[in-house]
Amino acid sequence: MMGDISPDLFMDAVLAYQQTAAIKAGLELDLFSNIGEGHKTAESLARKTGAAVRGIRILCDYLTARGHLEKHGDQYRLTQSTAAFLDRRSPSWMGSVVEYLAAPEMMALFLGEPAAFVRNGGSIGLANNAPDHPIWVKFARAMGPSRVSLAAKIASELATPSPRKVLDVAAGHGMFGIAIARAVADAQITAIDWDGVLSVAIENADAAGVSARYTTLAGSAFDTDWGSGFDLVLLANFLHQLDQDGCVALLRKARESLVSGGRAVAIEFLLNEDRVSPRFSAMFAFQMLGSTPQGEAYTARQFEDMGRAAGFTTVTTKPLPPTPQSLILFEQV
Amino acid sequence: MMGDISPDLFMDAVLAYQQTAAIKAGLELDLFSNIGEGHKTAESLARKTGAAVRGIRILCDYLTARGHLEKHGDQYRLTQSTAAFLDRRSPSWMGSVVEYLAAPEMMALFLGEPAAFVRNGGSIGLANNAPDHPIWVKFARAMGPSRVSLAAKIASELATPSPRKVLDVAAGHGMFGIAIARAVADAQITAIDWDGVLSVAIENADAAGVSARYTTLAGSAFDTDWGSGFDLVLLANFLHQLDQDGCVALLRKARESLVSGGRAVAIEFLLNEDRVSPRFSAMFAFQMLGSTPQGEAYTARQFEDMGRAAGFTTVTTKPLPPTPQSLILFEQV
Repeated sequence: MMGDISPDLFMDAVLAYQQTAAIKAGLELDLFSNIGEGHKTAESLARKTGAAVRGIRILCDYLTARGHLEKHGDQYRLTQSTAAFLDRRSPSWMGSVVEYLAAPEMMALFLGEPAAFVRNGGSIGLANNAPDHPIWVKFARAMGPSRVSLAAKIASELATPSPRKVLDVAAGHGMFGIAIARAVADAQITAIDWDGVLSVAIENADAAGVSARYTTLAGSAFDTDWGSGFDLVLLANFLHQLDQDGCVALLRKARESLVSGGRAVAIEFLLNEDRVSPRFSAMFAFQMLGSTPQGEAYTARQFEDMGRAAGFTTVTTKPLPPTPQSLILFEQV
Repeated sequence: MMGDISPDLFMDAVLAYQQTAAIKAGLELDLFSNIGEGHKTAESLARKTGAAVRGIRILCDYLTARGHLEKHGDQYRLTQSTAAFLDRRSPSWMGSVVEYLAAPEMMALFLGEPAAFVRNGGSIGLANNAPDHPIWVKFARAMGPSRVSLAAKIASELATPSPRKVLDVAAGHGMFGIAIARAVADAQITAIDWDGVLSVAIENADAAGVSARYTTLAGSAFDTDWGSGFDLVLLANFLHQLDQDGCVALLRKARESLVSGGRAVAIEFLLNEDRVSPRFSAMFAFQMLGSTPQGEAYTARQFEDMGRAAGFTTVTTKPLPPTPQSLILFEQV
């Protein structure tokens, strides 16, 4: 215990599950919106939420110690980031992601037998990856709202040349395809996913006013006949669930469904060649190890190799700052 | 999403339970000792542990991204801190703390219904705080090894004036009382705890060669007759499980069992007046909120008030760097 040698990082990791508990408790009590609305003391927050003052005080102190709140005297305030992402009144609110990313089913995969999926080199996966399991609907509902601004940004990247016929594979909430429908006035979107999930995408397409140009195709991305003539095949946050053979097979299917000059576009967490940076991508690879049978994160070079194996000639990556994600464009020139 | 506004801290908290899973997996596979012994690549570690290369690679990359390991080319290395605390061959190894601090029972208290204990202002507690529940034995076995050096440091602080008759209340693994027995040649230690737990303390006293001066008293700290004539009453990591009335009652009982000039000594996580620093103490208060009915962390002023209410005249606090704990000395001058 001298110099920089300290058990702090280890202890922080051991107790890290308590961070998840604290942020879930704060969201469930809508603490962040309540503080944003002016309930600034533990007493006022306790009255508003019906919780014990002592519980609120200790939770808010913890959230302050971890940087989610500020404390001035006995008053709590939202940090700018917390106001942007955890106050329900903010357009960039993303509190719902806990409903999927820290769902009991998801946490059980990691915490039930943490060494098992490392030993096996993969996880049995959520709901055994069963089609039409309610977890996928939960996913679509939980993750959709947080993707609106990223989807708009990606749509503006992909609006030129204008895609007329777009296929959104494993569409989930459908936000990425829907954003393209909004950005390109005559684009026709076809979304593929499990039937239950597509009902969420259809709701979102309705809300965005693009349902007249939105059709769906229920089933597995691998087994469904996609048809052909697409200008753009979207693979948004899907390839990372597959191993490299699966990625190549799916990219080949994408290529075969494209018109000449069409392109496939993946949205992914790119790893650098060292595979330990950027940090979020390395974390994401572990998330895939623990929650899918064969998924992980890939490097730009791996995507290039997989794209070429699928018959594409050009593979280009483009970061999407400030998000941790990148676009990967697969083209035949 | 501009300037310093970022969802990163929030996302890190949402996914924090995966940190706990990763560190538990690493310890269960004894990855850190294996790397320390020279198994430096994913392939070599996989052979040694019988795990899939892919699982080991992704786990080690994650642990590197989070600062527990270093990576050079395809070789992993222990950081100095990881070598000190997570390699079994190190005398300061503390890997066993996960068996208690991240035990399934403990994680379930926090992650089962995270808002419930905040609403209630406290938790039902581990094993309903039942006496002689196996979890307390687990606690004693898991936490003992990590306390050896802190206990030795505290014993040297308390060795002058030499205490002859020492009471170790809620002794658990017994390490703090045992360290005093080792530091003061004729000190007699009496340890109070549940019967099952005392068997661990007795093992540890045997191993330290002090069992001839070590006696035990089975039962609740509140209900047991402690006897009297003690020079030193140790309250090591116990007061934080109690509310303020409970602390005062226990401190009064301690005072009444002391000889004139004797002292009670608590080991605690002290909060500053702002209650959000030091960070580990604020985290600890939340840990008590989620895992005990009434426990939390207190400030120096609160300990002083509680000590005076119990009849002590002087209350002094003394930090124990580099640990996050402090000594609190209760005296009658």
